[in-house]
Amino acid sequence: MTTTMKSLEPFFAPQGVAIIGASARPGKLGYGVIQNLIRNGYQGAIYPINPKAKEILGLRAYADVTHTPDPVDLAVMIIPARAVPEALQACGRRGIRAVAILSGGFAEAGEEGVALQQEIIAIARSFDMRLVGPNGVGVLNPHSGLNTTFIEQIPEPGNIAFLSQSGALGGALIDLAKGQHIGISYFASLGNAADLTETDFIQALGHDPHTRVITAYIESVHDGPRFMEAARQVAPHTPIIALKAGGTQAGARAVSSHTASLGGSEEAYAAALKQSGVIRARSIQELFDTAIALAYRLPPRGPRVAVLTNAGGPAAVAADALARSGLQMPEPDEATLAALRQALGDAPQLLNPFDMLGAASSPEYEAAAKVLLQSDAYDALLAILVPNTANDPVGVADALARAAAAAEKPIYACFMGDVSIRDGRRRLHQHRIPVYDFPENAAWAMANALRWHWVHESPPVAVTPPDLAAYEALRPAIRTFLEEEQPILAEAELYPLLETIGVPVAPWQAAYTKSEAVAFANQHSGPFALKILSPDLMHKSDFGGVALNVSAEDVGKLYWEVQARVRRRAPKVGLQGILVQQMAPPGAEVIVGVRRDPTFGPMVMFGGGGVYVEALRDVSFRIAPFSDEEAQRMISETVAGRMIMFGARGQRPGDVQALASLIQRVAALALAIPELEEFELNPVIVHAPGQGVTVVDARAILRPATDRA
Amino acid sequence: MTTTMKSLEPFFAPQGVAIIGASARPGKLGYGVIQNLIRNGYQGAIYPINPKAKEILGLRAYADVTHTPDPVDLAVMIIPARAVPEALQACGRRGIRAVAILSGGFAEAGEEGVALQQEIIAIARSFDMRLVGPNGVGVLNPHSGLNTTFIEQIPEPGNIAFLSQSGALGGALIDLAKGQHIGISYFASLGNAADLTETDFIQALGHDPHTRVITAYIESVHDGPRFMEAARQVAPHTPIIALKAGGTQAGARAVSSHTASLGGSEEAYAAALKQSGVIRARSIQELFDTAIALAYRLPPRGPRVAVLTNAGGPAAVAADALARSGLQMPEPDEATLAALRQALGDAPQLLNPFDMLGAASSPEYEAAAKVLLQSDAYDALLAILVPNTANDPVGVADALARAAAAAEKPIYACFMGDVSIRDGRRRLHQHRIPVYDFPENAAWAMANALRWHWVHESPPVAVTPPDLAAYEALRPAIRTFLEEEQPILAEAELYPLLETIGVPVAPWQAAYTKSEAVAFANQHSGPFALKILSPDLMHKSDFGGVALNVSAEDVGKLYWEVQARVRRRAPKVGLQGILVQQMAPPGAEVIVGVRRDPTFGPMVMFGGGGVYVEALRDVSFRIAPFSDEEAQRMISETVAGRMIMFGARGQRPGDVQALASLIQRVAALALAIPELEEFELNPVIVHAPGQGVTVVDARAILRPATDRA
Repeated sequence: MTTTMKSLEPFFAPQGVAIIGASARPGKLGYGVIQNLIRNGYQGAIYPINPKAKEILGLRAYADVTHTPDPVDLAVMIIPARAVPEALQACGRRGIRAVAILSGGFAEAGEEGVALQQEIIAIARSFDMRLVGPNGVGVLNPHSGLNTTFIEQIPEPGNIAFLSQSGALGGALIDLAKGQHIGISYFASLGNAADLTETDFIQALGHDPHTRVITAYIESVHDGPRFMEAARQVAPHTPIIALKAGGTQAGARAVSSHTASLGGSEEAYAAALKQSGVIRARSIQELFDTAIALAYRLPPRGPRVAVLTNAGGPAAVAADALARSGLQMPEPDEATLAALRQALGDAPQLLNPFDMLGAASSPEYEAAAKVLLQSDAYDALLAILVPNTANDPVGVADALARAAAAAEKPIYACFMGDVSIRDGRRRLHQHRIPVYDFPENAAWAMANALRWHWVHESPPVAVTPPDLAAYEALRPAIRTFLEEEQPILAEAELYPLLETIGVPVAPWQAAYTKSEAVAFANQHSGPFALKILSPDLMHKSDFGGVALNVSAEDVGKLYWEVQARVRRRAPKVGLQGILVQQMAPPGAEVIVGVRRDPTFGPMVMFGGGGVYVEALRDVSFRIAPFSDEEAQRMISETVAGRMIMFGARGQRPGDVQALASLIQRVAALALAIPELEEFELNPVIVHAPGQGVTVVDARAILRPATDRA
Repeated sequence: MTTTMKSLEPFFAPQGVAIIGASARPGKLGYGVIQNLIRNGYQGAIYPINPKAKEILGLRAYADVTHTPDPVDLAVMIIPARAVPEALQACGRRGIRAVAILSGGFAEAGEEGVALQQEIIAIARSFDMRLVGPNGVGVLNPHSGLNTTFIEQIPEPGNIAFLSQSGALGGALIDLAKGQHIGISYFASLGNAADLTETDFIQALGHDPHTRVITAYIESVHDGPRFMEAARQVAPHTPIIALKAGGTQAGARAVSSHTASLGGSEEAYAAALKQSGVIRARSIQELFDTAIALAYRLPPRGPRVAVLTNAGGPAAVAADALARSGLQMPEPDEATLAALRQALGDAPQLLNPFDMLGAASSPEYEAAAKVLLQSDAYDALLAILVPNTANDPVGVADALARAAAAAEKPIYACFMGDVSIRDGRRRLHQHRIPVYDFPENAAWAMANALRWHWVHESPPVAVTPPDLAAYEALRPAIRTFLEEEQPILAEAELYPLLETIGVPVAPWQAAYTKSEAVAFANQHSGPFALKILSPDLMHKSDFGGVALNVSAEDVGKLYWEVQARVRRRAPKVGLQGILVQQMAPPGAEVIVGVRRDPTFGPMVMFGGGGVYVEALRDVSFRIAPFSDEEAQRMISETVAGRMIMFGARGQRPGDVQALASLIQRVAALALAIPELEEFELNPVIVHAPGQGVTVVDARAILRPATDRA
């Protein structure tokens, strides 16, 4: 179900608003909201609802929402949680289909609150009514003057929408936008998002003519797959920039005590946001910096940045920051050099960064900026100004605006300092030139703008889920394991299933007698690996349960030796025999696995193999399903994968196609078998191109799908 | 030689100043400097020097510095570069021993400028005169009103000193400090640092009563070892915070075009700053944020942070940021809980972060802050405030100051937003409570303050260079290699030298005949490694020149086979035979090596072994010499090293003592043999504790020490 801007219109541009819980006492929120509506120029009808008051702030008050005249299409509730259900019923009967609930005391406040929240959702459904909140500060629209929040001073109308799962963080950013003269289109405080979630607002704002950029502060996504689908559709035409809190253990604990939400893992969020084209900000400042970059200007179409400056030090800092953000600072080509010489003479260094020295004038900035914005050597311009007695920041701001007017490439400014450049910065905001306090901020905003350009150019594709028919054949076996309460599966259980779905496993035999082991060894070419068969041992090698590079003639002898070794170290575990497996030819060792995320579902992992490399976390993740291209990207995101793609000293390239295909098979397995809680092929040996891959170990943990909410 | 504050007094608090190049025309720098001296309340004598003017800004002008009356102990030069030598001679004759040269056109401006810079250094030496600059903006001291810069509005007197290798960056930060009401003690623009360098100022400011924190913007350190020694002595009592530009290739290029300085490597700077106790800021903002943290408050004595807030979202962001900075947010102990309950009642969640909800009052902030600052569970307090209609930022600022007054622990504030909290922020600065715009800034500043606490508690030790007598024995061999123009050394050349200095090498034999190889194999237990002996091959295994795990009986056969394999792949290289070496027992593979840095000299590297791991850059560096403790720290900074220290699944701990001792031997080798340009033991096999380490490959590149400046 897609939420449209039309359906949210009562929230952002209502004809009339009833304030349930209006107060005649200044300082009360029920007074402040009405005051803010009047102060911010809201033109619709305002109906204070208060059983005791006759009039509030010069407006006639009503005892009950039932008696308000038309038009009234939005209700704002500022009453105790327990009173909300009855008030909601009254709104429903009155024909109000949009309610912003500012009251707290719902899901964030323990069991009783959870029940209350369920109740209001049911009431809303029964009236076909939409809710914002509860436990938020409501909505704000500078275009219509609508403001249901406690925020007094609101920014000018603009193009940046802001969704926040923290009303306070929203308030602080609104205050910041106001102070820096940055316009916003809408603000919605999602609160507990009992009904309308971040996904609904993203869907709607994606088609709103006022909104150029959607920014979001997210503590937890409410419906992973629906969020990904909505973001995937919106992000290519309207950038979505998200700050996700709770990425560390401490952060997740703070989030959970704040909104009682059970978060998915950081890895899953990182993968899901990337796969659906959402740009991720690493700090509040970066969220803000990126928003103005994308709201004010088209993004750069490539990574090549010209830096124009009147100071060498800040330019050096910029060069470091640009490089660390993945951007480039190439030298000018001949044509650009010639044009610069004509514009500036030979005096300044005609190298990137282009340092015009301290006293650089506004005309010099304008002339050089024009040349650099027209140059084929660059995709974007960063203009740095350090104030001094010889220059005029406002004049330079105007000069940059003139240069930018005709350009098809973006220009970014870094005006450093404070008192001396305040007016210059304000002027740049008026000219819609993104301006930053420090070169580092400019660099990450530019890099994020370029990231969005790539999302725009190559939108994330809608992935048709793969044909899972072949994988359905595994269901009876999985059911049996669960019925027999055998949730941990090792090689002997998994290999037959893997072979059924075409995963290449090195030839093997579960040998419950020595003669079975010897017979297998005689039928295959060596060397062999001997691994203890025991339902109780997760880490076989820790107990001496593995022998590698065993020749055919030694298999018989080691059949008992390996079991004896384990018996000595772990006297009580049950031993069933030995799994004999042909050693795979050497190659790069990698891991392919599955984890199931509470928010986003099946997540596939790829990474380098071996204990050491696991410690180095050289891994990448994707939410299934994903395209073949994404599988290739997973490989290329790791050092292990790049070495397989391109080779390295002493290591030839490997069969990337076969590896990508294995990753896709594992993704399909995760989609087909929801009981697969954890799954790991470790290691998988990657052979030379055309030679495929071989799985030489596997383990899985099952969990009844009904155990999950 | 140590530079004292006394010796720099003429720069910061001169009795009289001569302005050579004074101008009567407003807008000129030679006018602005005099104007700034007067405006900022400088009380000493001011002598404009200008051959044509009679009077400038109401001051009598002199045609020549020779004729100025006493007192005059500082000259400021704002004249063309070519005129500087003569003016310097005149100052010398007049008895002026301190000159700030603002003129550009020296080492940063090509060959002619380099010569000019040499000339002024010589003149200064001949008069025992000290120089600041050239190519900087001079010095500024709000305590005495001295200001030789173009910066008009200067901050209040305070405790933060700022050294800058970019005058412009300095100017911008001074402007920022002014705007945010942050006081500074001194500012020096080092320019080309022809005479006085960052090291001299660090030495002097380390004993200045006004200076609590030294901040520095550094593009290149002028004398690596002297800098490290000075920083090591100052940092434990006066924090030094440095922003180093040029850490990326693009940044290094920008630095070099800015000041023509040839930088050391990023790895060397990282190691040198860490070893000498300098706190490194990763951005201009972080430099600033850390400076106020350390200037205003004592640092935390541990990593445990209590977060007090009126908003859940910002607290969640803070929790993530604190965790990412290595800080902790433990839950309160019973005593703290009881005290909090008494102070606040049960209403807010008594969990860390302590969320008092939106309307939290100033008395609540004060009461809770007092409890948390006294609690044994915490080392520091972070107080977050988001403005709303119900609270009073100035009142909260005063409340926090009252709570902090009695506390022995630091308090940090994050007041979010802009227009609504400007006054609150200003009040916090007045109370000397570090205040930040966003939780992320507070987190990194707190983490840096804690880093400094550790420097203060365990100062970097002065390392006595090791006894190099044993290593002197290698000199003749090194000399011979260089004389024979054989700069690349492989195993056969290096092993004898390594054995001389007690490095454990696996038994080996350079076999120039098959019978030599077979004889060695018969005298030792196998298996063996066979490696091609060729002066032309750097990467033996790429050409099939290595056979591993060879049994004694196969050594004869493989003697010719390995040579034939190399011959096929590299028909033109010279082959000398085979190096046979006993295979070391298995163990963790690591690399120990040396690189020589142009700024800091011999740098020792430690890291995990193998091509894959090299690509993952799991390495650590130290400048030699260093203490045994530092050698242990090098090991612990890498994942490979931690696995050797603590073991891992499938890998037992290794002989850390033997490894640390090998690292120290390599450091001594690098110190004793300055011709050792690059050196690598790769791999070194680390055995079980008590079993030592074994070197199984080595290479080196020599370079005559005279080739280096």
